[in-house]
Amino acid sequence: MTKIDLNSDLGESFGRYSLGRDSEIIPLVSSVNIACGFHAGDPDVMAKTVALAEEAGIGVGAHPGFPDLQGFGRRKMAMKPTEVKNMITYQVGALMAFTSNKKLQHVKPHGALYNMAATDHDLAVAICEGIKQVDPDLPIYGLANSELIKAAQEVGIPYAQEAFGDRNYNADGTLVSRSLPKAVIKDPQEVAKRVKIMIENEEIIAIDGTKIPLKPDSICVHGDNQQALNIVSELRATLIDAGIEIIPF
Amino acid sequence: MTKIDLNSDLGESFGRYSLGRDSEIIPLVSSVNIACGFHAGDPDVMAKTVALAEEAGIGVGAHPGFPDLQGFGRRKMAMKPTEVKNMITYQVGALMAFTSNKKLQHVKPHGALYNMAATDHDLAVAICEGIKQVDPDLPIYGLANSELIKAAQEVGIPYAQEAFGDRNYNADGTLVSRSLPKAVIKDPQEVAKRVKIMIENEEIIAIDGTKIPLKPDSICVHGDNQQALNIVSELRATLIDAGIEIIPF
Amino acid sequence: MTKIDLNSDLGESFGRYSLGRDSEIIPLVSSVNIACGFHAGDPDVMAKTVALAEEAGIGVGAHPGFPDLQGFGRRKMAMKPTEVKNMITYQVGALMAFTSNKKLQHVKPHGALYNMAATDHDLAVAICEGIKQVDPDLPIYGLANSELIKAAQEVGIPYAQEAFGDRNYNADGTLVSRSLPKAVIKDPQEVAKRVKIMIENEEIIAIDGTKIPLKPDSICVHGDNQQALNIVSELRATLIDAGIEIIPF
Amino acid sequence: MTKIDLNSDLGESFGRYSLGRDSEIIPLVSSVNIACGFHAGDPDVMAKTVALAEEAGIGVGAHPGFPDLQGFGRRKMAMKPTEVKNMITYQVGALMAFTSNKKLQHVKPHGALYNMAATDHDLAVAICEGIKQVDPDLPIYGLANSELIKAAQEVGIPYAQEAFGDRNYNADGTLVSRSLPKAVIKDPQEVAKRVKIMIENEEIIAIDGTKIPLKPDSICVHGDNQQALNIVSELRATLIDAGIEIIPF
Repeated sequence: MTKIDLNSDLGESFGRYSLGRDSEIIPLVSSVNIACGFHAGDPDVMAKTVALAEEAGIGVGAHPGFPDLQGFGRRKMAMKPTEVKNMITYQVGALMAFTSNKKLQHVKPHGALYNMAATDHDLAVAICEGIKQVDPDLPIYGLANSELIKAAQEVGIPYAQEAFGDRNYNADGTLVSRSLPKAVIKDPQEVAKRVKIMIENEEIIAIDGTKIPLKPDSICVHGDNQQALNIVSELRATLIDAGIEIIPF
Repeated sequence: MTKIDLNSDLGESFGRYSLGRDSEIIPLVSSVNIACGFHAGDPDVMAKTVALAEEAGIGVGAHPGFPDLQGFGRRKMAMKPTEVKNMITYQVGALMAFTSNKKLQHVKPHGALYNMAATDHDLAVAICEGIKQVDPDLPIYGLANSELIKAAQEVGIPYAQEAFGDRNYNADGTLVSRSLPKAVIKDPQEVAKRVKIMIENEEIIAIDGTKIPLKPDSICVHGDNQQALNIVSELRATLIDAGIEIIPF
Repeated sequence: MTKIDLNSDLGESFGRYSLGRDSEIIPLVSSVNIACGFHAGDPDVMAKTVALAEEAGIGVGAHPGFPDLQGFGRRKMAMKPTEVKNMITYQVGALMAFTSNKKLQHVKPHGALYNMAATDHDLAVAICEGIKQVDPDLPIYGLANSELIKAAQEVGIPYAQEAFGDRNYNADGTLVSRSLPKAVIKDPQEVAKRVKIMIENEEIIAIDGTKIPLKPDSICVHGDNQQALNIVSELRATLIDAGIEIIPF
Repeated sequence: MTKIDLNSDLGESFGRYSLGRDSEIIPLVSSVNIACGFHAGDPDVMAKTVALAEEAGIGVGAHPGFPDLQGFGRRKMAMKPTEVKNMITYQVGALMAFTSNKKLQHVKPHGALYNMAATDHDLAVAICEGIKQVDPDLPIYGLANSELIKAAQEVGIPYAQEAFGDRNYNADGTLVSRSLPKAVIKDPQEVAKRVKIMIENEEIIAIDGTKIPLKPDSICVHGDNQQALNIVSELRATLIDAGIEIIPF
């Protein structure tokens, strides 16, 4: 039976500040990426979010980001590879400590770190080495066909090819920049249809019509507002109808 | 053969800032407490310090503290027990991730957290629960006979009774406050003699002459200046002369 | 004509995190206390909030707090008086820089800092000295009859006696702790009536019936939820009906 | 009489961490740039450093940097112009509050912020607008002939053209990167000679022999080690011998 993982970012609250609709997105996905205290999250939020995800029986992953709470990890920072490696080890270790069995399903870099690593080989390698330092069997989620996937192969850790149903792609497999008009797809049915095609045909149609070979292991979805939750619900229904099983990676 | 552990705080540098004489103290002790990034230390300092300690074959411990870099973890903070528990889990997990075998020898709370927990039962229990959340077999170092030791017994984690050779004790087993004139003993020979008596007689003479029963598992020493290093050298020589073995806990 | 100031905390968002209903509370009050980046707020939030308040023509005050974003400045910290003094100068100076004319109407300490200073003379003096270092003519808002008011007199800066319409008082003029059941008054009409009596009779009835002399210069109100906004609306209407003018201090 | 300003970075300690030889460099320079708590410095260090500089009668400037204590403000960050503007206002306002007369002599951006703004027009404008928001008569120190100077002209704030005696220049007036072998000049006599020529001839010889027109208002010197202090001493002596007066901008 064909299967796919749906993942979403979680645990992005901090202290007095609430963010995201964690309890509503959890029943809709099979894996979650939990912030580790650098760009969002704090030890209490991490403890609570790991407990929620474990209770729901979904895959728990670390979501490490740049040390920039004000910028929510979305501002590029020029860190040395060694600094990145150690920062990843630190955050992954911190989150792992909250799990029941001291095991994580995966690690997915957050925000600017994820985006930069999709095209920056040295940065991508540093991230993978930071993960390997914690556990050489711990998989990374990276943009399908990107430098992060190549780095995982080079460093020798497992990986999952991640795709985005609600984003348009350029012909080279990168995402259309959010600053451009057609970057994001907002219609739930179109998103669902695109993901179904990706999974069944193992390809995606780029914005210029080019067919890009793509075999996704996990689809990234969002849960920070009602519209996003509607998209995930529609996507789930479409995939289940098509006989595609939604399970953790 | 009688044996004792000597422990010292390490890895207290941060970014551009250097602190402590780590490479000089490492050969003199059997265990180290490494800062975890909240009151001192950063991921790069942690990686480097763990590597140095492992290379020297000494016991590696986590040294979690309050989230207060400016105050170096020495300012009391009123955190809720749950916040303390999760803060400990976070810091211990982060440091553990840098070790080769994902094992720590021990955890020793730092600064104000250590001092407050010596007399605050709820705080002491929260710290021990934070450690247990990571690994129920991971020992805590606490002031001998203090609430931290009682909390470890209550929570069910191993512990080491820690004593101070260079500090005077009150009759109730607490340390004479640093704000009082005779708090600290600076003469290397007197420190060495006191520790030898502690180990051999299993008691310490309080400042008023009271004999306090005390069976130390580990002695805390300092390495942040030349005078401190001289004290440790004298102490080592005295203990070895007396046939007391210096080994990790 | 009798007059009173209504003040509320504002600008408590941070980066990606939104908090409070600033645009709704601004039309209802005559003064605002704006967070300065230590317990809440960031430079962008400060710039925006100062602009909103100036546009509305209400009094702009600094709301400095402990350096504890995770704890929202609500956790007690044991800082030395000099540290407190300089921390206040820093935060007040930072906020003042965003005003059009480089003038603030007042400074009101936040959270645990405010509460601790109500009874801790040395801390209260340190706060007032931190304000005086910026501008000796800059008034402090402090709990009426508390150590903060005495410290302002001692240090020689202006002050406003602040009272709370939605909180019960102990016979000694301190607030009933929030951990006790009757700490907070939630009925809008009762709050409005209490404040009216405070202003007209210059006294407040403590929880045990004791009459406490109290001549409030400013009433603290809240705007972080609909219920709080309802209370302020009711209070405004009641005061205006009673011929009491609501104007900045 | 020909005159020049010598400026140096100061107040870079933080909490328990000491950095720099502030008391030794102060008598050798005419202006200082004081860290504002984001990349280095804290309110206590700022208070103390401002007092030291005012006592010595030298020019006091703010030295704002990126919010990155671990990276000491030396790591590039991609902040939006509005974020930069407000971050500058915040830091400048905070430092200004510690001065006796609430006046600063100048503002000099620190580290990566200074370097990026030398070639990034939008960033340079944002910095100048952040200064203007505090005081439109407050000068900026920027790399001579760089985008920072052009931005100051565009925004309408005063400026000082800054030059480096111990750095080689490229033919386009930028500094030779520190990653290249001849970036830094270490011989005190050569540094002194270069600065003297800069001031007298109003030009500097680039590393390829090109003569670059340059009329420096201030020369940047360092005081973080003995070698640096030796260079400043030699430079002072040479300038005074040549009849060049060393005074604040």
